[in-house]
Amino acid sequence: MGKGRLEAFSDGVIAILITIMVLELKVPVGRSLDALTPLIPVFLSYVLSFVYVGIYWNNHHHMLHTLEKVTGPVLWANLHLLFWISLIPFTTGWMGANHFAPVPTALYGGVLFMAGAAYFLLEQAIIASQGPHSLLKKAVGDDWKGKSSPVIYLVAIAAASKAPWLAQALYVSVALLWLVPDRRIERALAARR
Amino acid sequence: MGKGRLEAFSDGVIAILITIMVLELKVPVGRSLDALTPLIPVFLSYVLSFVYVGIYWNNHHHMLHTLEKVTGPVLWANLHLLFWISLIPFTTGWMGANHFAPVPTALYGGVLFMAGAAYFLLEQAIIASQGPHSLLKKAVGDDWKGKSSPVIYLVAIAAASKAPWLAQALYVSVALLWLVPDRRIERALAARR
Amino acid sequence: MGKGRLEAFSDGVIAILITIMVLELKVPVGRSLDALTPLIPVFLSYVLSFVYVGIYWNNHHHMLHTLEKVTGPVLWANLHLLFWISLIPFTTGWMGANHFAPVPTALYGGVLFMAGAAYFLLEQAIIASQGPHSLLKKAVGDDWKGKSSPVIYLVAIAAASKAPWLAQALYVSVALLWLVPDRRIERALAARR
Amino acid sequence: MGKGRLEAFSDGVIAILITIMVLELKVPVGRSLDALTPLIPVFLSYVLSFVYVGIYWNNHHHMLHTLEKVTGPVLWANLHLLFWISLIPFTTGWMGANHFAPVPTALYGGVLFMAGAAYFLLEQAIIASQGPHSLLKKAVGDDWKGKSSPVIYLVAIAAASKAPWLAQALYVSVALLWLVPDRRIERALAARR
Repeated sequence: MGKGRLEAFSDGVIAILITIMVLELKVPVGRSLDALTPLIPVFLSYVLSFVYVGIYWNNHHHMLHTLEKVTGPVLWANLHLLFWISLIPFTTGWMGANHFAPVPTALYGGVLFMAGAAYFLLEQAIIASQGPHSLLKKAVGDDWKGKSSPVIYLVAIAAASKAPWLAQALYVSVALLWLVPDRRIERALAARR
Repeated sequence: MGKGRLEAFSDGVIAILITIMVLELKVPVGRSLDALTPLIPVFLSYVLSFVYVGIYWNNHHHMLHTLEKVTGPVLWANLHLLFWISLIPFTTGWMGANHFAPVPTALYGGVLFMAGAAYFLLEQAIIASQGPHSLLKKAVGDDWKGKSSPVIYLVAIAAASKAPWLAQALYVSVALLWLVPDRRIERALAARR
Repeated sequence: MGKGRLEAFSDGVIAILITIMVLELKVPVGRSLDALTPLIPVFLSYVLSFVYVGIYWNNHHHMLHTLEKVTGPVLWANLHLLFWISLIPFTTGWMGANHFAPVPTALYGGVLFMAGAAYFLLEQAIIASQGPHSLLKKAVGDDWKGKSSPVIYLVAIAAASKAPWLAQALYVSVALLWLVPDRRIERALAARR
Repeated sequence: MGKGRLEAFSDGVIAILITIMVLELKVPVGRSLDALTPLIPVFLSYVLSFVYVGIYWNNHHHMLHTLEKVTGPVLWANLHLLFWISLIPFTTGWMGANHFAPVPTALYGGVLFMAGAAYFLLEQAIIASQGPHSLLKKAVGDDWKGKSSPVIYLVAIAAASKAPWLAQALYVSVALLWLVPDRRIERALAARR
């Protein structure tokens, strides 16, 4: 079964999602700079989510490099990941429109948490498809980034009701943590060659 | 003629359709959890349709593996299938916005029925393009899933006016029926090799 | 320069355009069958335009098969064609929302005329890129379809103010004329091999 | 790491952006030609931005031809470029809806300036990835177009408050400057072969 088509479909969906988010930046009424002021939180949440979706694309790209054959579980785990990423434009729009209010901030973290969990499940499905000598398993190692991110999301969700700005700071921190591409997979692929 | 480009175009259309559906989840006014309550049926119908479109992508992907040459009928049967899938975001939005009311529920099933019929026509066009020793014909066999799904859709449409929730349960059942990817095509391809 | 990327980009744009048109089918207020009645002309114009965009994709697909190298003029002639096709969702929406009124019907034909002209220019740019023994030139021959379509569009535009339904009938006729894929290019490619 | 997937993802995003802009051309109320009059500035700004995004796609296409391996910086510089291009539909819509008023005109130039800067950064990231004998560095040479464009944008932004039409003329001029595809990269690639 074609890995190329799985990549192409995922690329298509992620490219559309990253672009659909910009539609929440609605053309304002009014022609002065002031007309843009209410859009500032919408813009900032767009930037944050653009980076998050970019990180997902980037790491998805790396992870699929190790994929050898597309099994049923891999295919559905991939669709499941795309499903949660597809909710990011909605939570981004809601959070931006409400100036980072507590509940939208918590929901934003909730969807990031589910997307992180879906990414983990896809990782496990690929590892299972590769049998006992899985290249991806070796590459991922103890995966401290993958393990600490959900914990930070949960802290952020808990903090959102009292200190939504702390939650935002935590979301930015996780993004920065992942901005550096994952050398582990590259190293494991290079070692095999 | 290029099978690759037919796949790429179909992937593009399906990726856009699966993503456009999420636009029906409109950012609500209000910043509390209560603001999300009216979105619950919209969300549930999004989940159902995401799974349906995912299934179509998945099976389309498998079926096209057996395609050897893109004939005129295959090309138009493929566009015809994409046409009916393209109506799923509309019926999903209408059904979700009306909390699974009878008529929207029946129309939802009607479009699924037509998409199923279009899928069957594409299958026949590919079989015809492969001549007497069609690999796909062998792979598909008696196709009990393909034959029972339209019957279940028709039952659901008939039930929608009296018991829309029964119709929903039937739509979920057909989705579960198809969630398991179709091993027949893989087996037939493996046997040929 | 990569012909593959030109095809992929064109496929992407055409796939998005064919899908964006369905967004004009706005989810109606009301849950009865009557709520769908005002959507009938929108739906019919969607069907017509879906077929037109499908024809463009199909013929574009065939024409690019003969392309050997992507020159500057080919690249811009292709973007020019995509520009005019990109206006079809707008004219479709306007015509459908106004129940095939004269001016929207004429504008619909005007955009089809310009798209046809852009297609002709792309054909000429490809022929020019192929030098004196152009495969595409041979394949296209006297191109009666390409020559008669713009004439029919002009007749339809002229008829739109008095008899918009005649204009519609002419648009449907041109679509039917092109529905049959263009064997000339396939024959010319086969002959060369 | 796959250059193909970087191209495919960029193509997807650019294809969606170029198409999303047309959504600002909202179907007007009214069925006469007069109903179209208020859309003229929206249409003109769409044409200008279509050409700009087309130029970016075209030059991006050429530049990536010289890319040999996808490094982390190249990947993020590419996403950064896509981010700024993704704001063009918004600034296009705002400028068109306000009939080329001063502030929207200046913001339009500001986003073009940032996109130009992001393009320059991507160029530098690719050159850095190619080591001392960078093919792209040789091809780009002194890059008078790349150096003069941001200066012209800044002049246009400064002029926008007093003479927005001068700013528009400058944007059109830069577009015309770039409409001719960049032969330098083609020549450098040909020379290497």
